[in-house]
Amino acid sequence: MKIQSQFGPKKQTFEIGEIVFLAQEKPLKLSSGLEIKNFPLAFQTYGKLNADKSNAILICHALTGDQYVASKNPVTEKDGWWDFMVGPSKPIDTNKFFVICSNILGGCMGSFGPKSLNLQTQKIYETSFPLVTIQDMVHAQNLLIEHFEIAKLHSVIGGSTGGMQALAWGVLYPQKLQRIIAMATSYRHSPQNIAFHEVGRQAIISDGNWQNGQYLQEDKFPSKGLSLARMTAHITYLSESALQKKFGRDLKNKDGFAFSFDREFQVENYLHHQGSRFVERFDPNSYLYITRAVDYFDLESDFNGNLSLAFRDFAKILSNKICLIAFSHDWLFPPSESKKLTKAMLAAGVNVSSINIDSNAGHDAFLLDDNLLKSTISSFINN
Amino acid sequence: MKIQSQFGPKKQTFEIGEIVFLAQEKPLKLSSGLEIKNFPLAFQTYGKLNADKSNAILICHALTGDQYVASKNPVTEKDGWWDFMVGPSKPIDTNKFFVICSNILGGCMGSFGPKSLNLQTQKIYETSFPLVTIQDMVHAQNLLIEHFEIAKLHSVIGGSTGGMQALAWGVLYPQKLQRIIAMATSYRHSPQNIAFHEVGRQAIISDGNWQNGQYLQEDKFPSKGLSLARMTAHITYLSESALQKKFGRDLKNKDGFAFSFDREFQVENYLHHQGSRFVERFDPNSYLYITRAVDYFDLESDFNGNLSLAFRDFAKILSNKICLIAFSHDWLFPPSESKKLTKAMLAAGVNVSSINIDSNAGHDAFLLDDNLLKSTISSFINN
Repeated sequence: MKIQSQFGPKKQTFEIGEIVFLAQEKPLKLSSGLEIKNFPLAFQTYGKLNADKSNAILICHALTGDQYVASKNPVTEKDGWWDFMVGPSKPIDTNKFFVICSNILGGCMGSFGPKSLNLQTQKIYETSFPLVTIQDMVHAQNLLIEHFEIAKLHSVIGGSTGGMQALAWGVLYPQKLQRIIAMATSYRHSPQNIAFHEVGRQAIISDGNWQNGQYLQEDKFPSKGLSLARMTAHITYLSESALQKKFGRDLKNKDGFAFSFDREFQVENYLHHQGSRFVERFDPNSYLYITRAVDYFDLESDFNGNLSLAFRDFAKILSNKICLIAFSHDWLFPPSESKKLTKAMLAAGVNVSSINIDSNAGHDAFLLDDNLLKSTISSFINN
Repeated sequence: MKIQSQFGPKKQTFEIGEIVFLAQEKPLKLSSGLEIKNFPLAFQTYGKLNADKSNAILICHALTGDQYVASKNPVTEKDGWWDFMVGPSKPIDTNKFFVICSNILGGCMGSFGPKSLNLQTQKIYETSFPLVTIQDMVHAQNLLIEHFEIAKLHSVIGGSTGGMQALAWGVLYPQKLQRIIAMATSYRHSPQNIAFHEVGRQAIISDGNWQNGQYLQEDKFPSKGLSLARMTAHITYLSESALQKKFGRDLKNKDGFAFSFDREFQVENYLHHQGSRFVERFDPNSYLYITRAVDYFDLESDFNGNLSLAFRDFAKILSNKICLIAFSHDWLFPPSESKKLTKAMLAAGVNVSSINIDSNAGHDAFLLDDNLLKSTISSFINN
């Protein structure tokens, strides 16, 4: 089944790929205690599922990513966000593997989220949509895997928020997978990261066009707030040295300062560009829901302060293994957090490989074509 | 002369301390090329100027600081921002020194800024106020020093934006001072810092109540935007480890998550509190002007990429000396920038002492009572 969906302030309509309705018989109980049923999950697949259904890799996308891992995104008309990684003869070789990626619960690319229609009221949910967690996203993905009648995933792979999902898979469904690759991520969202998320949310909420969350019904769109949220977040996705290398203090107008509040520096211009592009493809309420889900994530407190316990069940299955990948200049999820996670996993007896990749690209390094990243992933899933 | 001024969305009126009108005969030419004349500068003094006028210390305040270094601030009714440092028998001992601090050009505590009345049009300047630079602020301070008929300052001291002013004093008026203490600062604003400033400015500009800069005339106030700008900036004033230590992931409601977009975490609560407090005391347009002035600051490019040249004239006067103080967890002006500045000064032949203070407080460490900070400053100015 295919669905149509509207995007951005211009409300352009696009056809979004495959979709299934899950939890049709038994509702899914969310972390909040609320239940959802017969809800849509939009997904893309690449490659073919083999006869014994042993070659399925689930890829979990990041905060504002989507299911278009390796095919043209219908909204942006750009290549998928991991096109260099997934495809025939690529590191995640779709001649061999069957790759699944679904839009996360709370998302805005066809999956159940604030932009979905509430069938009971026949109105769009907007902020009446229930709050969700990373764990809820994983439970929804598990229903999708059951829909495919896959008993055991070959691998679950994700970066950043997708990495949190991959880790949560290991905690919630250790018997349903064999390998986890978690990149540029952590066992919990730090207070500094929560603070940045809150600034982004308040930028949206403070925009007069947010209309107390009911902007779609009111035919408005909080473009400025969403753009500002993205601009703030984007700074955290890069690194001081990447910004220095990419822009330095280069001026927009090479003749010198204009002495105005217009964009004087190239780095300002770049940020505004990132903000504007984001507004065309993302739902402001989805941004609130997903950032909140990430804020809630804390495997350590889920296990009463003992992070090792989170991976105890995973470690019991001897064939299970995990690869953690951190990036040297990632200050959103710094290598120190990956190190702490590695220690906790080792203490639980997990077969874990922990790799630090030197890159000045910052957090977004996992989205960039890099030989060491590609060979690490390829060898881990093929071993 | 004393002046009255209005603050915040409630437009409460307060009496602001001493004020002088400068450049009454000869206008001051700004970096932009525009000229200003007969403009007000508000200041506070502590201690007594001695007979030969050799005991004057100029303190330069930071971005959103003010002239109330060591006396009750009439707007916040709190102690001055460096009360632990300046006063009788304190590290900067006002039994010995005559301390001057003026509100910076572009500020909102009585000095010439966007909240000032344009005497020609009889309207408040708002965004018709000219753009200013750190150097312009220093030229205005120099006129204040001339007003006091002080030929040579004993010391110029400042942190952060105040540190930039202190450095600029050394470049512009090396013969008019003997000692500089520059804390938690840099020779230039980095692209990442410019990016954060731009986010703050856009938060204000995007607020519907900003009214294209004319909110005072329109009887509006962009509180949400100003609060959001402060929240964003405040994250950069602390450090990841300070936030971890101070709040961790502590919840506002100890019973667990409320599953809402209200403040769930203590760190969110703290940021909102900082935002709200700031709105009561600061002018949104001033925030635009001062952040822009800081963005413009780059002593390296002023001297065609040779930072040493900036301090060549300062080094020629053998009695001149500089103390640079960096803080280990300051990620706004990291110790690496202080190190680069130290090297450039040494290459110029400057008598420079460079100190790194270990503190997890982040950038704001220079505002916190610390024995090493106090003894460093005390011994440098008394030596």
